[in-house]
Amino acid sequence: MASSSSSSVEAITSLLTSLSITPTQTLTHTPTTSPSTWRTSIQETANAPTSFELIKTLVYKPKTAKTATPIPVVVIARDTTETNSGAIGKKLGLKELRLANEDLLKEFFGLDKDSISPLAITSSTFPKIQTIIDTSLLSSTTSSTLFAIHANSSSTTLFLTGSDLIKYLKSLETESFKLQELDFAALSAESTTTASGPGAAAQTSRAAPKEKEDAKIEGAVQVAIGVKKEVDFASWYTNVLLKGDMLDYYSVSGCYILKPWSYSIWEEIQHWFDAKIKEMGVQNSYFPIFVSQKVLEREKDHIEGFSPEVAWVTRAGSSELEEPIAIRPTSETVMYPYYAKWIKSHRDLPLKLNQWNNVVRWEFKNPQPFLRTREFLWQEGHTAFLTKAEAEVEVRQILELYRLVYEELLAVPVIPGIKSEKEKFAGGLYTTTVEGFIPTTGRGIQAATSHCLGQNFSRAEMFNIVVEDPNDANIGGQGGKKLHVWQNSWGLSTRAIGAMVMVHGDNQGLVLPPRVALVQVVVVPCGITAKTKDEERARINEACEALAEKLRKVGGLRAKADLRDGYTPGWKFNEWEQKGVPVRLEIGPNDLSKSQTLSVRRDTGVKAPLSLDEIETTVKGLLDQIQKDMFVRAKEVYDGRLKEITKWDDVVPALDAKNVVVMPWCERVECEDDIKERSGRSSEPQDERAPSAGAKSLCIPFDQSRFTPLEIGKTKCTACGQDAKSWTMFGRSY
Amino acid sequence: MASSSSSSVEAITSLLTSLSITPTQTLTHTPTTSPSTWRTSIQETANAPTSFELIKTLVYKPKTAKTATPIPVVVIARDTTETNSGAIGKKLGLKELRLANEDLLKEFFGLDKDSISPLAITSSTFPKIQTIIDTSLLSSTTSSTLFAIHANSSSTTLFLTGSDLIKYLKSLETESFKLQELDFAALSAESTTTASGPGAAAQTSRAAPKEKEDAKIEGAVQVAIGVKKEVDFASWYTNVLLKGDMLDYYSVSGCYILKPWSYSIWEEIQHWFDAKIKEMGVQNSYFPIFVSQKVLEREKDHIEGFSPEVAWVTRAGSSELEEPIAIRPTSETVMYPYYAKWIKSHRDLPLKLNQWNNVVRWEFKNPQPFLRTREFLWQEGHTAFLTKAEAEVEVRQILELYRLVYEELLAVPVIPGIKSEKEKFAGGLYTTTVEGFIPTTGRGIQAATSHCLGQNFSRAEMFNIVVEDPNDANIGGQGGKKLHVWQNSWGLSTRAIGAMVMVHGDNQGLVLPPRVALVQVVVVPCGITAKTKDEERARINEACEALAEKLRKVGGLRAKADLRDGYTPGWKFNEWEQKGVPVRLEIGPNDLSKSQTLSVRRDTGVKAPLSLDEIETTVKGLLDQIQKDMFVRAKEVYDGRLKEITKWDDVVPALDAKNVVVMPWCERVECEDDIKERSGRSSEPQDERAPSAGAKSLCIPFDQSRFTPLEIGKTKCTACGQDAKSWTMFGRSY
Repeated sequence: MASSSSSSVEAITSLLTSLSITPTQTLTHTPTTSPSTWRTSIQETANAPTSFELIKTLVYKPKTAKTATPIPVVVIARDTTETNSGAIGKKLGLKELRLANEDLLKEFFGLDKDSISPLAITSSTFPKIQTIIDTSLLSSTTSSTLFAIHANSSSTTLFLTGSDLIKYLKSLETESFKLQELDFAALSAESTTTASGPGAAAQTSRAAPKEKEDAKIEGAVQVAIGVKKEVDFASWYTNVLLKGDMLDYYSVSGCYILKPWSYSIWEEIQHWFDAKIKEMGVQNSYFPIFVSQKVLEREKDHIEGFSPEVAWVTRAGSSELEEPIAIRPTSETVMYPYYAKWIKSHRDLPLKLNQWNNVVRWEFKNPQPFLRTREFLWQEGHTAFLTKAEAEVEVRQILELYRLVYEELLAVPVIPGIKSEKEKFAGGLYTTTVEGFIPTTGRGIQAATSHCLGQNFSRAEMFNIVVEDPNDANIGGQGGKKLHVWQNSWGLSTRAIGAMVMVHGDNQGLVLPPRVALVQVVVVPCGITAKTKDEERARINEACEALAEKLRKVGGLRAKADLRDGYTPGWKFNEWEQKGVPVRLEIGPNDLSKSQTLSVRRDTGVKAPLSLDEIETTVKGLLDQIQKDMFVRAKEVYDGRLKEITKWDDVVPALDAKNVVVMPWCERVECEDDIKERSGRSSEPQDERAPSAGAKSLCIPFDQSRFTPLEIGKTKCTACGQDAKSWTMFGRSY
Repeated sequence: MASSSSSSVEAITSLLTSLSITPTQTLTHTPTTSPSTWRTSIQETANAPTSFELIKTLVYKPKTAKTATPIPVVVIARDTTETNSGAIGKKLGLKELRLANEDLLKEFFGLDKDSISPLAITSSTFPKIQTIIDTSLLSSTTSSTLFAIHANSSSTTLFLTGSDLIKYLKSLETESFKLQELDFAALSAESTTTASGPGAAAQTSRAAPKEKEDAKIEGAVQVAIGVKKEVDFASWYTNVLLKGDMLDYYSVSGCYILKPWSYSIWEEIQHWFDAKIKEMGVQNSYFPIFVSQKVLEREKDHIEGFSPEVAWVTRAGSSELEEPIAIRPTSETVMYPYYAKWIKSHRDLPLKLNQWNNVVRWEFKNPQPFLRTREFLWQEGHTAFLTKAEAEVEVRQILELYRLVYEELLAVPVIPGIKSEKEKFAGGLYTTTVEGFIPTTGRGIQAATSHCLGQNFSRAEMFNIVVEDPNDANIGGQGGKKLHVWQNSWGLSTRAIGAMVMVHGDNQGLVLPPRVALVQVVVVPCGITAKTKDEERARINEACEALAEKLRKVGGLRAKADLRDGYTPGWKFNEWEQKGVPVRLEIGPNDLSKSQTLSVRRDTGVKAPLSLDEIETTVKGLLDQIQKDMFVRAKEVYDGRLKEITKWDDVVPALDAKNVVVMPWCERVECEDDIKERSGRSSEPQDERAPSAGAKSLCIPFDQSRFTPLEIGKTKCTACGQDAKSWTMFGRSY
């Protein structure tokens, strides 16, 4: 890293001291390999302030004659502020502003792109550049807001109060060179609002701004701006969740805070699914979170799958417990002793209980929000029937509900099928599953499972859940025939939210399907400037509130008018886009005069003016269309990446090209072990967070008819050459 | 205990062996002081079977001439079977059957009343008595059902299968003396159905059967039948919960299983309260169950209140954790570090989050279902405001919602007020509360609390939750004035269900208020006998189902037709009464011909025929009336037991007479300590499950106007004689 001595941390600190500026904190943390991981890197460091904002420092070069020395433009803004080079250039009267290349940075600052910070600007460089500061920084630069600033090195971060940051920059000013303010939010709003003029009445797509975005990335010099989904998926996922206000990291590793924006999605799933299972006669109940060691370990196969992850309570207050007590990783062993007690006769069947609860699986693998967390929320249904036939009907009914949760609520396509022997639930008879797909990584994701446990938990040596055979003629007499009940268990967890984010999110942030979005429509007043009269401002605000009210009351939609003062439309657009609100409606003076509003779809960026007459019907239709389109697009991608393969040599290349394969398979455990080993060996390096690089069977799809017909007894297993039994999906997976 | 050698456990066992009968299990457990605690005593014993039924053995004496030797009638039935001496006598043609006194028991069996069991009947006594066995025992006496039978001693219980019990009794038969069967369910149904005849068309109260019930208890010889609420409240409470299918005991002490019958009440509370707080702008979220030791112990006053009860996880799988992690006893310390992070500006206020979750407080005191459990479900709201005024408004709004949950949903009267300094929430500014009352014990019960935390958690040394003062002219400049936010927290737990059961339950079981009952109306077909033609039976069943359907579909009521085969109406009546269903509708052939149904109110026992025309409106009205009546009656009792007291000498007698007192009080902590000490000293022995025998302050009611006006500066504190500040409620409490 090229770093002149004048920009070392010590030098900076001494410089600040001379100005009576003391950083609130100086933090040395894990060197960040990319600016995008800066926040995470800070947060993982002990003593990190809980509250701070990141600063980005962008260096632009205007187009100048080749012989002229360029005057770079340095923009200092909040990390979250939208900074559009075109708009900045226009404002400053500079042509073709482009992000500067490394050479220019070295020349002016003696630093590489990862080390640029506001503190890289010194009294010697300040007069050679134009320094632009975001107005929003100025207006909030008070001592209660901390800004994290790289001390010209990617592993040391200084925390300055806003006022100290301004103080530092002001200290560099000379008679001729002053710090310049620019209201980026207003800038962004203007450029957006412009598009709502008459010329934009026709639908326009987002293609144009996206090209700019792509251009930015090449040779870009951006500190701590979001990464692209396609470039660093893991960081993208974390950033989207944080910026979309879905969750926050928590001080206990592997645990996360579900903020209202994500929890409300879970509530939507709960309301829908809960009503459906109640129609089926399932009742809710609550069993304790604790289970004694003895009971937990009753079923050996079952516990073997869970014991490495069980959290144990050994102490209460200052007393050691006589025997450690486990926190449930799932509730089979918690519940079934009581099923044995309660089920006394065939008249007590079916018994269908469900609970919405938290479970704990203390995974030591790398945690990932929603997908692999030490505590998670789910529902677990546990049912008991007299006959296998009844149990099997329910297994599939529940699986169908899971499919609907994913496909109709979350717009995430899944493929229903049965798990292989190797992948089935420990201790069950067989497991049915809906399997999802994350296109960006090409990995499968187990979305929800519905298990037929058979009589394994009810047999005499286990929980001994028996009834008299009601068809036994001997009933009422002595020694009637005993029947062990047939059981199912089925679960759907908050993992669903993670899958939804991964499938639909884009480089602007979350994209929420309308059916689960807490806010389906946001109405934003536009075209209000400093010159706007109070009366006009009030009229626009009232129109926005009236529109939102109408959508809520008449349309039954979840609509909100964002009338916050002190935030520009652009700032608001950005916030609601990051949060994935499906539809934005803008109302400015022009719209009002035409009795219309400009609608902007979050999923496509498509804009269209809508008449305010019967707006609730139009918007409802638009939301339905978005819901449908999101699913159809995702399904096209999944279908396109599900490759029918009949030659082994094609398997690994297909996986490497981020596909899931489906192939004729013999269904043997040994063959599956072999496939995992062979597909892992030859694969390219995998994302560290992926649990396994080898391919696992995902499921044997119920719908075999979508694939080329197998000739049973003739078609061979693609992996081993024995007779194939079914088309089976294999893939790398979460 | 008088026990002849022939009835010792060894003797019985050897007798059984001679008949090739082996008890499934012989359990020696804590001697039960009363038959009512038999089940609990068994359940608390290691190795107790999870599934068994209790047998009751009742000895009746018919009226005979004084000189004649009576032939006692011994009835062996399930504990839960209704056995009406009048009906039995009528059936057997015996006059004035009465429960036998101790002398008779000694004479015939050589045993006292606690030791009578089916095994007390031997070949020498069998011919001297009439032995009656419940048909339902016979028809289910197969090897899968276990019956617990006292081995003529209250601390040893034998478990026999039903068939072995019959086998034993049959072995005693002689040519002339046979075991007699009696169908008690049918008997009960007949006596009930009789009341629906023309003579019962007018409303009749339950007074008559209640007198009989009372008579039964005097000198009664009943093994393991339910105790009376007034006689042994703690056992009554447990029995009502078990028989009412509300919960089951769990293998980890202090934890209970909430069965659908109670969980559905919690769901009703959730739906109502959740909608109300969402209207107030509160959002739901989910914070982790775990909290690190460091964070948990941040607030010393606060943690002092909780630390003796904190459960600690120290191990995961087979790995010891580096530092122990606590399970939340409440979430202040879990949440507030993030409040500090998220609240950056006054624009982020108010922040209003709630969560529905489980918390763990590992109490070492005697646990009690719903009231004191190691894990419980609740909601905890945590809000932050810019000003004290806003916070205080919310504190009271929430308290009002809590009052409505109790009074309007659960029909449980409460008194809103403020807690004394001594009783307020640890670390808060002040605590408001709604205080309930359990008439049977005369104890107060803290029903729900809404705390104003003030700025104690937000101050700099604590979580430092600050914003700029928006009214500070210096804003945007340097050193703007910092304001520490004002916080509230408020919680309502499943304890509410326990209070409801205690207030409304009676000696028949639960009495559920209609608004929270999972089944509001049960429709039972009646008058079907063995002679009834299939066609007629179908017609009655269809009418019942149609009625339930109409109530559900047209009336929007939670109605259910109980068409189970193999259970008599009487058996069903008993079950639904134990479960507290507010209204029972009976339909028999006569009702059908008159196009009417007989309604029976659970709360009063009042019966009335209702026309089937517009039945949904009538029943809706009836349910509303029941809801109202239940509340009014409970309120009259509470008001009647709230005694205005102005002389110290009257305090303890009032408490001993199961009242709560309200007295002029100085509001000093020292005085409260003194009151507790003085009132505890002189009181009569207290229920061991009560946390304290001394009186605590319950609250200072907001409505002071209901009491005789205080003359401030003149009226003296009843306890210490200093100037009184308010009328304050004191009582023994849960």
